[in-house]
Parts: sequence; C-alpha cells; structure tokens
Amino acid sequence: MLGDFIFCNPTRIYFGKNSLSGLDKELPLYGKTVMLIYGKGSVKKSGLYDKVTALLKAHGKTVVEDGGVMPNPTLDKLCEGMRIAREAKADLILAVGGGSVCDYAKAVSVSAYCDEDPWEKYYIRSEPVDNKIIPVGCVLTMVGTGSEMNGGSVITNTRTKLKIGRVFGDDVFPKFSLLNPELTFSLPKYQMVAGFYDIMSHILEQYFSGEDDNTSDYIMEGLMKSLIKSSLAAVQNPLDYEARSNIMWTATLALNTLVAQGKSTDWEVHMLGQAVGAHTDATHGMTLAAVSMAYYKHILEYGLNKFRRFATEVWGVDPDGKTDRQIALEGLSAMEKWMKNIGLVMNLKNLGVTQDMIPGIVSSTLIMEGGYKILSADDVKKILLESM
Amino acid sequence: MLGDFIFCNPTRIYFGKNSLSGLDKELPLYGKTVMLIYGKGSVKKSGLYDKVTALLKAHGKTVVEDGGVMPNPTLDKLCEGMRIAREAKADLILAVGGGSVCDYAKAVSVSAYCDEDPWEKYYIRSEPVDNKIIPVGCVLTMVGTGSEMNGGSVITNTRTKLKIGRVFGDDVFPKFSLLNPELTFSLPKYQMVAGFYDIMSHILEQYFSGEDDNTSDYIMEGLMKSLIKSSLAAVQNPLDYEARSNIMWTATLALNTLVAQGKSTDWEVHMLGQAVGAHTDATHGMTLAAVSMAYYKHILEYGLNKFRRFATEVWGVDPDGKTDRQIALEGLSAMEKWMKNIGLVMNLKNLGVTQDMIPGIVSSTLIMEGGYKILSADDVKKILLESM
Repeated sequence: MLGDFIFCNPTRIYFGKNSLSGLDKELPLYGKTVMLIYGKGSVKKSGLYDKVTALLKAHGKTVVEDGGVMPNPTLDKLCEGMRIAREAKADLILAVGGGSVCDYAKAVSVSAYCDEDPWEKYYIRSEPVDNKIIPVGCVLTMVGTGSEMNGGSVITNTRTKLKIGRVFGDDVFPKFSLLNPELTFSLPKYQMVAGFYDIMSHILEQYFSGEDDNTSDYIMEGLMKSLIKSSLAAVQNPLDYEARSNIMWTATLALNTLVAQGKSTDWEVHMLGQAVGAHTDATHGMTLAAVSMAYYKHILEYGLNKFRRFATEVWGVDPDGKTDRQIALEGLSAMEKWMKNIGLVMNLKNLGVTQDMIPGIVSSTLIMEGGYKILSADDVKKILLESM
Repeated sequence: MLGDFIFCNPTRIYFGKNSLSGLDKELPLYGKTVMLIYGKGSVKKSGLYDKVTALLKAHGKTVVEDGGVMPNPTLDKLCEGMRIAREAKADLILAVGGGSVCDYAKAVSVSAYCDEDPWEKYYIRSEPVDNKIIPVGCVLTMVGTGSEMNGGSVITNTRTKLKIGRVFGDDVFPKFSLLNPELTFSLPKYQMVAGFYDIMSHILEQYFSGEDDNTSDYIMEGLMKSLIKSSLAAVQNPLDYEARSNIMWTATLALNTLVAQGKSTDWEVHMLGQAVGAHTDATHGMTLAAVSMAYYKHILEYGLNKFRRFATEVWGVDPDGKTDRQIALEGLSAMEKWMKNIGLVMNLKNLGVTQDMIPGIVSSTLIMEGGYKILSADDVKKILLESM
C-alpha cells in the first residue's frame, strides 16, 4: 500500500550530448557572481573546465573558484568554501564534477550564511535550514550518487571520524543539472562498475523493505532490468552511448526520491559499506558489492516473498516446481553472476580488510530499522566474516 | 537511445488519506483571494466542497466561485472564468474535481491576463505564454488524465467544433496537487474502468513508438504491470485502498511527462478516440478501448519487436517455440482478455457509432507521425470498421 507522502522535485534536468547549452538558459536567471566548484583537476584535463569558464565569461559572470574538492569532502574544506562564498557574495554555485562535488556544493549553499556551526546544526542535529540558501547548479561528470537531483550531502569530519549524510529538503535540491553521458566515457573501468553497483544498491535498498506491492516496486524492477542490460553493454564497450545514457538517467531516477515515495526503505548495505569504507578508504560501490551477497542471504528468509518476486520479475527465474526459498536463492545467484560478469569486487579481503579489522567495522556499522531484519552486532559480524 | 531532453516537473504532490491537510501548508504561500473552480456539483454532494471552503475560511481567504465546469470545458466557459479571475484579482486558482476541472483551471490561469484572444493565441497558434500566470492548485477527485501534474489543457470551441489539447510548459503546471485515493471510491464502475483504460492508453501510446530500448520503456512496463494488477483488484472491490492508491499514483506518473523523456511517442489511439468522442459524446476512456485492438493489430507488423517485448515483459507470454508474430499476437490477446475482464466497451457499436457516421469520424481523425505506421485515411477507415 502506498503510505501518505509529500513529493516535490523541482530540479531542471538538461540531458544529452548538448546539455552544456543549458547554461545559456540558466545563467541569465542568476546574479553576476558565480562560485565554480570542482574536484582534483580531471575537469581541467578533460577540457570541460575551459568550456564552462568560457560560457561563464560569455554571460558576463565574475567567477570565484573553489577547486580541489576531495572524494569524501571534509568539514575543513567546507569551512573554506563557506568563507569563499560569503566573501564573494556568490549568486550561484556551479558544481562541475561527480557526486562528491555536488554534495559539497549543497553543503556550502546551506552553510555559507549559517550563524552557528553548520556541522553541529545541519549534520549532527539535522535541523531545518532557516538561513539564506545560495542556489546550486551541477554539471555532472560521473554517475551513481543521484546527488544531481536530490538533497543529499555527505560530509566527513576528520577530527571526530564521523561521516554524515544529511538529506536536505527540496529547497536545497540543485536548481538545474546538466547530464551529458559522453562525459562519463573516460572513467576507468573500476570506478565505472563501482558506480553501476552503487546505483543497483540504491534501488535494492529501497526495494527490499515492506510487504507491499506498490507502483514504486514495479518502477524499481524496471530500473533494475534497464541497469542490468545497459551495464553489461557498457562493460563490453564503454563508449556505447545508448548504454551510458540509460545508465545515467537510471542513476538519477534511482535516488531522486521518486521510488521511495509511500514505502519503507532499508539502507543497511550502505551502512555496512560505509563502515568498511571508513576503515579501508575502499571505493564506495565496491564496499557495497563486497557485503551484499552475504547480507541478502542472511535476511532472505525474513523477506522471502520479496526475494521470490525479485527472482522471477528481475532475473526471469522460472518458478516451476521449486520452493519459494529455491526461487529466491536462484535470484540471488543470478545477481551474483551479473556482479562477477561486470567485474565487481566480491569480497572484503580484496578491498584490504583483514580479520583484525572486523571488530572495528562491526562497531562502526549503524543499524537501520527498515529492512526485513534488524541486525544485531552478532549478525553484522557474521555478515562481514561471510563477506571475507 | 535516450534522445536529448529537458525535464522539470515542479508540482508538489500531497498524497494519501490526509492529503487535504496540504492546504494548511500551501494556502499561506498565496495572497488573500482564491478562485474556487469545480464541476457540476458532485463535490457538494460528497461534502468535499464544505471541507475545502472551511479550510479557505480558516486561512482568512476571500473566495470567488466558478462552478459548473463541464466534462469538456468550452471556450464560452473559459471566457466567463477569465472575467471572474481578472475582476477578482485572484491570487490563486483552486481546482476541485477531475481532469476537466484541472484543465479548465490551467486555461483560466494563462488566459485571464492575455491581451489577445487566448483561444487564437494559446490553442490555435500554440504560442508561449508571455503574460502573468495565476498559480493553480488542485484537489483531485478522479484519476486518468494526469492533469494534476502536467501542463495539459483541453478546451472545446463549440462554434468551430474544434477540441484542442494544448500542452503548456512547467510554469503552467499546478503548483500543488492533493491526491486522496479515497475521493475516487465513489465513482460509478463505468467511469472508473474507463479511467483505468485512459491510463493504460497513455502508457501504451508512449511505449509503442521508436525502436529504442531505454529506461523509459522499462519504467512503463512496470507501470503497466502495476495498473493491470490493481485494476483487477479494484473491479472486485472498489474500496480496496491499496489498489486505488496504486492506480492513482500510476495515473499521475503515466502522464507527468517523465516517461516520455528522450523518446518518440504515438498518440494515434487518442486521435481516433477523440474523433469518435466528437461524433458520439461517448466516455473518453471507452472510445480508446473500442478502437485499440483493431489499431494495434493493424500496426503490429511495423513494430513487431516492441509488440513481442510487450507480450513477454508485460503479459508474461512464454516465447518458446513461437514466431515473433505469434508471441506479439498472444500479448494482444492477453490485453484483450484483461480489457474484457475489467468491463471495458470493446466495440464502437456499443458507444452509439453507426455505419453512416464512419466517414465523418475518418475525416475528424488527426494523423500523428510518431507511431510505427503513419495511417492513411483508408487505414483509419479499416480500423474503425474493424472496431464496429
């Protein structure tokens, strides 16, 4: 059953090979000063930086730069960005990069005019935003996080070793995002497939929750089938525009809040993966891949109906003459085969996890309550050991 | 392949049993004068009118009424509405009703401050809106048209016998829509199932176009499967909240512009159905149902791959040992069986069409160019005769 919900997603998407021309429509809507945020320099190598700055110049903008955003943006970096935004009186923040750059841009946009410590107010206490918000636009260069069309923003406090993902309301969503699938072509295969599994996990974590049979479940089955097909094609040929464009749009839809409306969600795999990440600095999507099979086998019996449905509807498992458990397990086997096919890391050892790290990872794993089983510390330990 | 697109849907949806409380959040955002638009009085019988006016009063609003909107809103009625809105200086238009009431409200919102004849400017010449737009909110009481989350607005000029559907941009979309599935419980069965097929046809007309295999196709397959299942449940028990809530949300997603992004679309069934409607005044969804089987059989060989996919993915047809054509036809048979099961009118005779009306309907049928075959007048005649 669809529970009550409020849904609004006002982000304007410019999608396709010519999406950068969206800046010609958007830039005139904002004031003169644009804060340009980007990462470690790949946008300079690719020539995208030059294209974007040329457009900003053509529109008469004053550009203030804030480059060097790291894969896990830190609170120290955020403090620097807040100062730059405030001093420049930025009218628009333009994020050029992947999910981390978008996340960071949103953090700057809500924090620049915060009278208190924004880490305490917005990330620790998760209060509503009541100060001026600087509008954000994105030019996306990597897929996976969905940050281009949602209010998510993950920031890491290196002093307290806390990495917190805050989900802001739609007033913090990017005002516009430019999505050109061709910009994703040059990503190394390891990062590419890790992103594919990040997308899959976003869908799975919203799918494997609740006993309902609602429209969102059917949409998610469609998104998964599209992703499975296109990911196999992209691994064969990373320049396959059809595959990369479908994956880019699927990634956005997987986490733009649409498919979660009216239903419960899990997110325990992300908690496990993030704990692994905190102890190893391994690539996010790979940490999710390494723990998923053990986690889903562990909870399978508690959500057997949904795992059975997953097997027949997403993987085409023939149910004839089989028990529900057999069907469900065949579905997970099909997923495992796909994961190996596209080249995911299937165990924690290969991400640098050693036996002595397990207790620390167990204690770093947050326990969610929306999945088919609320894990105990012992469950977490078993899943991690099984994932080795 | 996903073609280039620009997507933005800013409508805020309040969904569920308590969705009317969304007015408490929305009304304070607008000025004092609210123009209340509704239909022929069913909202007064159901008590909804009293609830809405009580809320408007509680928020200190001055209410200006414009009731009596007909199922096919006319240009004469629009002229009356424009005058009321302008004279009252309405700050917000609140539409309480089904798709016609929402369509009409959007027409008033763009026309009230139009310096020229809005019929000529916005419906005949389809020009962009360059005058003040009065914001619109909706309280939806029927499902099917998707008008609650798009820019569509169909107006009929009774003098020239032209019924024109204009699709406005997202600045004309309702600012908010309140969707309570319980408000749809009381609709008579004939109207209910006609609405179900209107939803199905919206999806089919976007699905059966193009040779692509893109994310939108997968989402549409999910929406159709959800609709098929829930429609069968709703026919058994119209008070089944699970079924009615899934159908209400599916109806919105089927025509909120999302699934058409990056792909071509057909809409020929709507052209056929609307021509039948113009000559019979039959219920819209039933006119679509009566012509669909003949139309799809007529174009099947031109889009065989997609019809084959429709059969296996939506209807679970087993492809083993069958030709593509056999598989495709089995899919259409499965759809026909479902249509009969839920009680749709399957031929034109039962909608009051007689042989002598066929030439007139043929000449009233607009020819679209996005489907698998561009119809000739002879094709249209064959399809209509086959549908008798």
